[in-house]
Amino acid sequence: MLESPIIAIDAMGGDIGPEVTVAAAARILKQRQDVKLILVGLEDKINVQLSRLNIKTSDRLSVQHASEQVAMDEAPALALRKKKDSSMRVAINLVQEGKADAVVSAGNTGALMATSKFVFKTLRGIDRPAIMTTLPNVKGHTHMLDLGANVDCSEDNLFQFAVMGSVTASAVDNVDNPRVGLLNIGSESMKGNAQVKAAEPLLQNSNLNYIGFVEGDDIYNGSVDVVVCDGFVGNISLKSTEGVAKMIGQFMKEEFKRNLFTKLIAFIAMPVLKAFKKRVDHRRYNGASLLGLKKIAIKSHGGADEYAYSKAINVAILEVEKSVPQCIESRLGALLEKTSATC
Amino acid sequence: MLESPIIAIDAMGGDIGPEVTVAAAARILKQRQDVKLILVGLEDKINVQLSRLNIKTSDRLSVQHASEQVAMDEAPALALRKKKDSSMRVAINLVQEGKADAVVSAGNTGALMATSKFVFKTLRGIDRPAIMTTLPNVKGHTHMLDLGANVDCSEDNLFQFAVMGSVTASAVDNVDNPRVGLLNIGSESMKGNAQVKAAEPLLQNSNLNYIGFVEGDDIYNGSVDVVVCDGFVGNISLKSTEGVAKMIGQFMKEEFKRNLFTKLIAFIAMPVLKAFKKRVDHRRYNGASLLGLKKIAIKSHGGADEYAYSKAINVAILEVEKSVPQCIESRLGALLEKTSATC
Repeated sequence: MLESPIIAIDAMGGDIGPEVTVAAAARILKQRQDVKLILVGLEDKINVQLSRLNIKTSDRLSVQHASEQVAMDEAPALALRKKKDSSMRVAINLVQEGKADAVVSAGNTGALMATSKFVFKTLRGIDRPAIMTTLPNVKGHTHMLDLGANVDCSEDNLFQFAVMGSVTASAVDNVDNPRVGLLNIGSESMKGNAQVKAAEPLLQNSNLNYIGFVEGDDIYNGSVDVVVCDGFVGNISLKSTEGVAKMIGQFMKEEFKRNLFTKLIAFIAMPVLKAFKKRVDHRRYNGASLLGLKKIAIKSHGGADEYAYSKAINVAILEVEKSVPQCIESRLGALLEKTSATC
Repeated sequence: MLESPIIAIDAMGGDIGPEVTVAAAARILKQRQDVKLILVGLEDKINVQLSRLNIKTSDRLSVQHASEQVAMDEAPALALRKKKDSSMRVAINLVQEGKADAVVSAGNTGALMATSKFVFKTLRGIDRPAIMTTLPNVKGHTHMLDLGANVDCSEDNLFQFAVMGSVTASAVDNVDNPRVGLLNIGSESMKGNAQVKAAEPLLQNSNLNYIGFVEGDDIYNGSVDVVVCDGFVGNISLKSTEGVAKMIGQFMKEEFKRNLFTKLIAFIAMPVLKAFKKRVDHRRYNGASLLGLKKIAIKSHGGADEYAYSKAINVAILEVEKSVPQCIESRLGALLEKTSATC
């Protein structure tokens, strides 16, 4: 690890591109004096944004030209094969060449996973990388994986996800033995589909702080730190909650906008409503980790704004500081060889 | 079908029992002059509640004694074999004997499914019954199945769920061709786990109004009428949204209770907050259907209060009026024999 974390930013990725990514980079440079950023993408477009924000390149902020872009709906395999000079690929290469410590992209998730996996390679002991995100809960936050990288998972995959999730949560949250739960439809041992039933003994016999099966509502009630599931279930759980949260928000807005009287009430209640809005602001949790790779790759939501994108950069910085891939490798090695881990 | 719908109520089922179920029955008798109810369970306990509410039995309200109860955590197979005189079993038997048209229970879900399946039998063409519920969406409501009866599903199971869901939605909502979607992690055809990929062509080649893959957030945005998934995914999606809704509610409460000033605001905003609360009141959607059986069984939430339980009785009444099992059988027969359905 280099002394100052260096983050390679896929400046072209996401629904909006440089307008968001460059502004987010500027925000981070103000917040963190010890971080260096490399903006990767079409030089002209990046420079337009730098001028707009009145920022000059320096030893802390450089631009790396890349002539191509991966489209949001492009087939991952095609992007990997054909777009050798895409902003995403060049940013990933910078990390592989040791010129940066982590890559952040708001681009095509499948392409980011496929390209990172191809370039970085997976850690020894990991069959498949997984996507982990942080979600709010009533007491703090919960880590959850996989969120969609792996749809059909074996019990070994689920076990590896548990190890990766536990190690990462432990490192980024500074806690010793995060509580790990396996997502299921009941807490009794007879419940569940074939995979979770097969994964249960592997987890019980591990030295993870495995607390057993957890249910969907446990993700948000603070009873578990790391929730493990296959990517099909994880993605549907996450999208379902996004849908219901949006609906609740819309209902609330409609009730406060119903008539002049309710609008007046909304005006009076503004300080509370603002505090509430801030509290449920999902942008704070932007930045999902592609775990199980030899280097650090962070996926931002495609529709992230400047603030949200800066949070994803922060996740990358934190994982660099905590040497997350090295910790996972050490813990996995210890599990495989029955020795003690260094992380 | 009898002229007045007769509903057998498992009066002992649920976390609370007769205090809730008898009161809910009383509420329904006031609302619906054309409905008859049979309260099944410990006669003494039911009579205490009837006295408390100052209600007399009549030709519209009778009590059927049953000496046993199924515990909420009892193994379904054990309940089925050993508890022949449980309130749940006796209520189900009343339907089978033609003395009632539908059963409602807030008891042990697994036992209700196992016993209903054993006594009623499944419809021809249905391999496994499924649990369907109604959920709010921004424009109205969505039906979703399976919610947990079947954890490992084949493509044929998913197809049958789609038929049952479509027929039931069509009957209870009075719509001709409800939009049916298959729950997945993306809308592109390359996405999904093995089961949904295998189910897709079956749905595409059917005469259902199949609109393709839908994602978790679509359940709540009004873009689909019937969401089909396996019971593992469905249960986790549902519980996840319950968890996040509860968390949002708690955050809101905390912000309004922060200090004297915010409490004053809460007091002023009370009419709007009440209207909002009513709008997101999940009790309105209580009452899940056990579909695919020859008779009607409705599962109430175990923790339902009087109002919520009365909603479950209403679902039973509606399904009796619409002859839901007969409609499913007719539609399935038509699909299997390529003739036209009578429903």
